[in-house]
Amino acid sequence: MTLTSFSQMVLPSLEADIQKVVATSTIGNDQSLTDILAYHFGWNIKGSQPGKRIRPLLLLLATESCGESWQEAIPAASAIELLHNFSLIHDDIEDKSDTRRGRRTAWKEYTLPLALNAGDSMYSLAYISMERLSQFKSEETTLQSLRIFSQTCLNLTKGQHLDISFEDQDQVSIAQYWQMIQGKTAALIASCTQLGAVIAESDPTTQEAYRQFGLNLGLAFQVHDDLLGIWGDPEVTGKSAASDLLTRKKSLPILFGLEQNQDFAALWRKEITPDNVKQLAATLREEGAFDYTQKQAALLTEKARNYFQETGAQGEAAAVLEELMNLLIKRKH
Amino acid sequence: MTLTSFSQMVLPSLEADIQKVVATSTIGNDQSLTDILAYHFGWNIKGSQPGKRIRPLLLLLATESCGESWQEAIPAASAIELLHNFSLIHDDIEDKSDTRRGRRTAWKEYTLPLALNAGDSMYSLAYISMERLSQFKSEETTLQSLRIFSQTCLNLTKGQHLDISFEDQDQVSIAQYWQMIQGKTAALIASCTQLGAVIAESDPTTQEAYRQFGLNLGLAFQVHDDLLGIWGDPEVTGKSAASDLLTRKKSLPILFGLEQNQDFAALWRKEITPDNVKQLAATLREEGAFDYTQKQAALLTEKARNYFQETGAQGEAAAVLEELMNLLIKRKH
Repeated sequence: MTLTSFSQMVLPSLEADIQKVVATSTIGNDQSLTDILAYHFGWNIKGSQPGKRIRPLLLLLATESCGESWQEAIPAASAIELLHNFSLIHDDIEDKSDTRRGRRTAWKEYTLPLALNAGDSMYSLAYISMERLSQFKSEETTLQSLRIFSQTCLNLTKGQHLDISFEDQDQVSIAQYWQMIQGKTAALIASCTQLGAVIAESDPTTQEAYRQFGLNLGLAFQVHDDLLGIWGDPEVTGKSAASDLLTRKKSLPILFGLEQNQDFAALWRKEITPDNVKQLAATLREEGAFDYTQKQAALLTEKARNYFQETGAQGEAAAVLEELMNLLIKRKH
Repeated sequence: MTLTSFSQMVLPSLEADIQKVVATSTIGNDQSLTDILAYHFGWNIKGSQPGKRIRPLLLLLATESCGESWQEAIPAASAIELLHNFSLIHDDIEDKSDTRRGRRTAWKEYTLPLALNAGDSMYSLAYISMERLSQFKSEETTLQSLRIFSQTCLNLTKGQHLDISFEDQDQVSIAQYWQMIQGKTAALIASCTQLGAVIAESDPTTQEAYRQFGLNLGLAFQVHDDLLGIWGDPEVTGKSAASDLLTRKKSLPILFGLEQNQDFAALWRKEITPDNVKQLAATLREEGAFDYTQKQAALLTEKARNYFQETGAQGEAAAVLEELMNLLIKRKH
C-alpha cells in the first residue's frame, strides 16, 4: 500500500462524510449558509481542486497503524478537517487575505459578517462530527477524544493570538516563536496522531508517543516551511522569491537574523523591496540563519522519527504513515 | 427563597468558576489573550457592573427544580455563559457595534483580528467547561449535554445568519422571522432549561417539557422585546424612542406592518428620522401591529406557562424559576 492507494481508498468516504455533516447547516429550505461553507471547500466549483486532506489522512493512518480500522475514525477525521477549515475562514478575515486556493476568500465573496458567522457554524459542525464517535466507540473514548479536541482548539487560538501580536512587536524572541508554532501548526498535527491512538484504544504510553510524534512532525514541518519561505525555489513553491522577507513575517530564520543584530538586522529596519530582497536573503544566510534553521529542522525531524519508532506502529499503515511523514518534512513546495 | 436570595447563593461560585476557566487561556506567562476576555466581561474595570447571568441562573434553577443540587450543574452553567459571551464578541464585530455595557466593544478596544480570535478562544473554553460535567455526572449524561450544546451552537449561527441576511432583504416574511428568533434567542434559553433536566437525569418526557418551556419563554421574551423596541418608554428601556424603527430592524411589528402594505409600508420606504419616527410608530399601531405583537407574546407566554406546569418542577426552586419567568416576560426594560 502507498499513500496514493490509501488516499484513493479512504478519501471518497471522508469527503462524503464531511459533505453530510455540512449539509446539516441548512436552515429549513434555505441553503444560503451551507452555500458559504461549500464555497470555502470549493465544492461544485469548476476547476477547483479538492484539498490534500493531510490532517485527516494522518489521523486515519494513525488509527490503522494501531490495529483499528480507519472507518471507525471517520467522525474524528471529518471533525479535524472541519476545524482546520473553520480556522482558515477566520484566519483569512484576520489577515485580510483576498485569495485562497486561487479563488476569492469567503469574506471577500460573501461579506465579513456572513463569513465570520459561517466560520462559527463550521466550528459547531466540527464538534457535531466528533460527537458521532460514540456510534463506534465507548462513551469514555468519545469523551476523551472531545477533551483532546477542545484543548487543540484552545491551543490553535493561542498560537493565532501570538502570530497576530507578533506583527506589531519589534522584539519577538525565538522562545516566543516556538510557543507560537506549537499552537498554530503543531497542536493540530499532534492531535491527529494522538486521536488515532485514542480511537484505537491503545495504552496511554502509546497515545503519548503518537502525540509527541505528531507534535515534532508539526514543528519540523513549520521550520522547513520557514526555510522555503526565504530560500525556496519560486518555481517549485509557487510563491515569489524570499516571500517571507517581503511580507516581513517573523519566521525562525528572520528572528535568528534579528537576534544577531548585525548587517541583516540593520537592513531589515529599512524598506524591503523586490529589488533588494535577494541581497537581504544572502546576508541572512551569511550570518548563519540558513544553517541554524536547517539544523533545527533536522533535530525536530530526528525527534519525530524517534517517537515514530516508539509508537510501535504496525502493518502496511505504518509504512504509509512513514511515507507521509517524509513527504511533509522533505517537501520542496 | 427569592430570585435575589438564590442569586446571592449561587453567583459567587459561578463567577469564580467562569474566571477559573478563562484563566486557562494564559499562554505561558503571557496574559494578553486572557486580558481581552476579562475586558469583555468587565472584570477589574472600575464601575463595571457584573452581568445578570440570566441564562446560567435558568439552568441552575432548572437543575434544582428537578431535585438535583445546583453545584453539579456549575460546569454547564459556566459553559452557557461563555457561549453567550463568545457570541456577543462576534456579534459586535458583525454588527459594527462600538459600545456594549457602556464601554468600547472588544474589537474596538483590541482590534478586529485579536477580538475575533479571542471570541474563538471563548468558544473553546465553553466546551472545556462543559466537558467537566463528568466530574459529577456519568459519561453518558456528559455526552448528551455536549450534544445538546453543539446543536445549540449551530442553531445560534443559523439564527445569526438569517438576522444578518435580513438587513439587505426587501421581503422578509413573518415565517422567516420566527425561524430567525428561534435560532438567535430561543435556542440558547431552551438549552438552559433542557440541560438542567438532563443533568438532573430526569426522564425524557420531563427533559422535553423543560426544553419546550425554555423555547417558548425565549420566543415570548424576544417578541416582548420587539414591542418595547418601538413602544417602550425610553426612560425605562434606556434606548431612544422607537429605536427599532430608527435602526430599521426587521422586528415582528415592523414585518407585520410591511405585510399590510398600507400607509406604514409606504412611509417605511422613505427616510426615517427622529422627527417623523413618532408618527410612524403611531401609524404602525393604528394598522394593528401593536395588538398583533401583544397577542403573539401572550400566546407564547401561555405556552411557556403550560409547559412549565408539565415539567413538574418542585420545591423552592420551582417558585424562583416562575419568578424569573415572570420577570423576563413582563419586564418593562
